[in-house]
Amino acid sequence: MSSSSEIDVLVSEVGPRDGLQSVDRIMPTTAKNAWIAALAASGLREIEVGSFVSPKRLPQMADAAQVVAHALTLDGLNVLALVPNLRGAEAAIGAGTHALTMPVSASRLHSMANIGKTPEEAIEEVARVCAYRDTIEGRRVSVEVGLSTAFGCTMEGPVSEDWVLEMAVRCAEAGADTVGLSDTTGYANPEQVKRMFTRLHAELGTKSGGAHLHNTRGQGLANVVAALEAGVTVFDSSQGGLGGCPYAPGASGNIVTEDLVYMLESMGLRTGVDIERLMKARPLILKGLPGEALYGSVPDAGLQKGFTYATAGVPA
Amino acid sequence: MSSSSEIDVLVSEVGPRDGLQSVDRIMPTTAKNAWIAALAASGLREIEVGSFVSPKRLPQMADAAQVVAHALTLDGLNVLALVPNLRGAEAAIGAGTHALTMPVSASRLHSMANIGKTPEEAIEEVARVCAYRDTIEGRRVSVEVGLSTAFGCTMEGPVSEDWVLEMAVRCAEAGADTVGLSDTTGYANPEQVKRMFTRLHAELGTKSGGAHLHNTRGQGLANVVAALEAGVTVFDSSQGGLGGCPYAPGASGNIVTEDLVYMLESMGLRTGVDIERLMKARPLILKGLPGEALYGSVPDAGLQKGFTYATAGVPA
Repeated sequence: MSSSSEIDVLVSEVGPRDGLQSVDRIMPTTAKNAWIAALAASGLREIEVGSFVSPKRLPQMADAAQVVAHALTLDGLNVLALVPNLRGAEAAIGAGTHALTMPVSASRLHSMANIGKTPEEAIEEVARVCAYRDTIEGRRVSVEVGLSTAFGCTMEGPVSEDWVLEMAVRCAEAGADTVGLSDTTGYANPEQVKRMFTRLHAELGTKSGGAHLHNTRGQGLANVVAALEAGVTVFDSSQGGLGGCPYAPGASGNIVTEDLVYMLESMGLRTGVDIERLMKARPLILKGLPGEALYGSVPDAGLQKGFTYATAGVPA
Repeated sequence: MSSSSEIDVLVSEVGPRDGLQSVDRIMPTTAKNAWIAALAASGLREIEVGSFVSPKRLPQMADAAQVVAHALTLDGLNVLALVPNLRGAEAAIGAGTHALTMPVSASRLHSMANIGKTPEEAIEEVARVCAYRDTIEGRRVSVEVGLSTAFGCTMEGPVSEDWVLEMAVRCAEAGADTVGLSDTTGYANPEQVKRMFTRLHAELGTKSGGAHLHNTRGQGLANVVAALEAGVTVFDSSQGGLGGCPYAPGASGNIVTEDLVYMLESMGLRTGVDIERLMKARPLILKGLPGEALYGSVPDAGLQKGFTYATAGVPA
């Protein structure tokens, strides 16, 4: 583990939100809190702990405010929550959440099917949330947009890259602090990832956000390598690839945090995460969701003989 | 599938050799032949079909000469076999094999444990095989060395990169047509792969060989992306990741051909392989080895909506 508090790449753990909402069963609040505490103790700097949505739609997330309250007690942790709209943003900010993430879909069909809004209407919601956020006194709540289906859509097929970039610009203009790209469907390939993030950086500069990549077709970490080449320094991932992938029974949906951290550290990029402590957090998922399928190769194979963590000054 | 016969990257299928020799059971010769024919029919240009070793040591490979004889009837296929020594080379060349591959281990401990020879003695064997090969009249049999444990060893831990490069030069001097690097142990990371193949190209030029990468820690395709950056154009892989990985129950050993071809074609790199025909070859493995575990994400998830193969002229 890095001895300094500095990191080269931010691994943003999304398991407690993205992972858990993909599982039908509900993880008890105490189990969530224990898991999140163990994740933070491994050195993860940022965790997306829940989603402020209708409990009728996603009962798995009904305890979001309680989970946020607990996460706020964890030292040095940036506490993120997903909000689909102003109502969710009000609740999340009321609960003390440090930063909000809002999904906006580049695919028109996916946007309508998922949230019943056009992409343009979703961007208007981002503007409303940012305007509300600007009224909060005493602290700055960051609003991060993740552009879903940015690399293709299961309903539409290919999505215009120009359109994705245009949406990114509009979201930034609407007030988002950062706009990242999400491979919601596992369609992305490394060439496309490198090209799209290069364009995103050219358009948005410091407002260009992180990469949310899936492993549906086994391309997750290959796409991370490509994104690193394009200068991306923030990656979403999920411990144990929790939630799996409905389209590929043996594959994780989200890229697996354990395998991601291992790769980054092996490459000389400091994450601040202790992989052995991270692996000790895995069983806590099963305490809350007995028998749930977990993914990842490093947890099975273990660290290699002579493995060393990245240190400052190693060429990336 | 590419309409031209030209390809950008050569995918060298090693399942019938590397995969089958990792499985305890013996696949019947007729099943091997049917599988190899289906692999070739999918557009794969090169297949490592067997190993000319003592049948006492590897009974799975006892029919290598028969398998080579059948593979030679397949149109346009480059037929490879592994040989550990001169005796194997004589048998392989006698059987009509187009090209030989010889494993030489960079790790001293691995070399002694695996073949009972020091790395220097293994290179002397390469020289003997190349000298013998030079006496063959009427055709040129290519000798390709793969440097095992080039990225680390389960016994020694890290292996000196300077030493690996020095061995590569010595193997080329011994007469090898190409020298590639093998991540036998699944230790490689993308930064190291890029660095090592860049050095290999600088040292060996056109004699620098392909990449043999494993997926033990889920890094296989990420390492392919890094190798592509370093100019590698030949990759070993195994259909269904046959043989699995003894250190990681859920992981393939070799990278999975289906996922590799999918990634390369998605990136705009022509392989000449038709993925749907390739997937039709998968069940033939199970005809010969009922119940054997197969890996790969693309076979589960399928090709995406709107997937297109690489075409000439697309930027790589």
